[in-house]
Amino acid sequence: MSENQINSGTVCLTKYQAYLGEFVYGGIDGAVTTFAVVSGAVGAGLNNEVIIILGFANLLADGFAMSIGAYLSSKSVKDNYNKHKLMEYWEVDNTPESEREEVKTIYRNKGFKGQLLEDVVDTITADRDRWVDVMMKDELMMSEEKKSPVTMGVVTYVSFILIGLIPLMIYVWDYMSYFAGNLFVWTSIFTSLAFIFIGFLKTYVTQTSKLKGILETLILGILAATVSYFVGDILEGIISG
Amino acid sequence: MSENQINSGTVCLTKYQAYLGEFVYGGIDGAVTTFAVVSGAVGAGLNNEVIIILGFANLLADGFAMSIGAYLSSKSVKDNYNKHKLMEYWEVDNTPESEREEVKTIYRNKGFKGQLLEDVVDTITADRDRWVDVMMKDELMMSEEKKSPVTMGVVTYVSFILIGLIPLMIYVWDYMSYFAGNLFVWTSIFTSLAFIFIGFLKTYVTQTSKLKGILETLILGILAATVSYFVGDILEGIISG
Repeated sequence: MSENQINSGTVCLTKYQAYLGEFVYGGIDGAVTTFAVVSGAVGAGLNNEVIIILGFANLLADGFAMSIGAYLSSKSVKDNYNKHKLMEYWEVDNTPESEREEVKTIYRNKGFKGQLLEDVVDTITADRDRWVDVMMKDELMMSEEKKSPVTMGVVTYVSFILIGLIPLMIYVWDYMSYFAGNLFVWTSIFTSLAFIFIGFLKTYVTQTSKLKGILETLILGILAATVSYFVGDILEGIISG
Repeated sequence: MSENQINSGTVCLTKYQAYLGEFVYGGIDGAVTTFAVVSGAVGAGLNNEVIIILGFANLLADGFAMSIGAYLSSKSVKDNYNKHKLMEYWEVDNTPESEREEVKTIYRNKGFKGQLLEDVVDTITADRDRWVDVMMKDELMMSEEKKSPVTMGVVTYVSFILIGLIPLMIYVWDYMSYFAGNLFVWTSIFTSLAFIFIGFLKTYVTQTSKLKGILETLILGILAATVSYFVGDILEGIISG
């Protein structure tokens, strides 16, 4: 694989591309949950004021919870990596014999043997950082997360709010009297466009075909909204009468 | 690090423990979003029937979206890994010289040189599987996801519904006339217990202190519900007044 091919893949992303995943998954969650709240309320026959109130309550609360959640889980992965790295440094310094044996086992499993195995182990254990690097990658199978937890949280929040606003837009416009017609139909059209856009972006993260990424996201959003609409409709029927 | 220490960590989990992460994050999302819907509706002064209707619509739609999302993103990671692995096999078979050079560069960066470097490269490139394994780990920094996307989706769904039901329980009991008192206070107490329980479980995934995991989850849920309550309350005041 040439340098260029590698650079165009997911593996070596530029600084901005690296957070595309957070933008995409934050945006999908924002649109899916807000559209589900709107659809559930429409299904239950609630009026537009209630849809706006609950839509925004859900948008702000869930966006907040999602982004703090993204920050905390990424921070715990980072902390966990650093904790294990410190443990490996401690072991390399304090129990070098058994750590040396572990390197030997790792390289024996890679197919090395005899004098070559001894020489490989000597080279790796000659440098503390290199030694710990091998233990992290080959023993613990842990790779370092380079992304910043704070940026991950912020990108998730911005995307959740931005894309999640789309299913509510029409209701706000209508409330401000700029709009007329069947609001839920217009909201469904705008939200579908949002799903198509974010599904298209998703294909850059998952490296799959454009059509597959768009259809997956669109169908997911429509199905979730359908479930929400009918649960709202059916429960309203049961409870009211 | 001894075998026992490794086995007690996150790295080598048993089959069931491996999906604890999905259970924890699915459960947190379920409780946070459902509690936010309930709080927003209480803040907006909506009646209990509406809370039950929207709570369940949101629970089922979001649980569905979350679990399909977990399935799709894990499947795309797996597919992406397999695609790159096939590409590496193709390159090892068709452009062995340049692939050999890449192994050499990787091991030169690890501190190997001279004859030892040549011998190491010979050993690695003597076996196709071993060769590709080195390319995946050291060139592409990709490690294989052993977990099943379907199981990840199912565990997320079950946990989302199970824990997400807790904020709604009291309202359902009340509707069935088994309960009396200030429902939102009781719901807050039960949901807080759910956050404490799932926060406690989370510490087994993140390997942090019990207190930290519990407080993080509890505070996250309470803050999201508070945001939702006040957005509901304030918007209701603006729109009605």
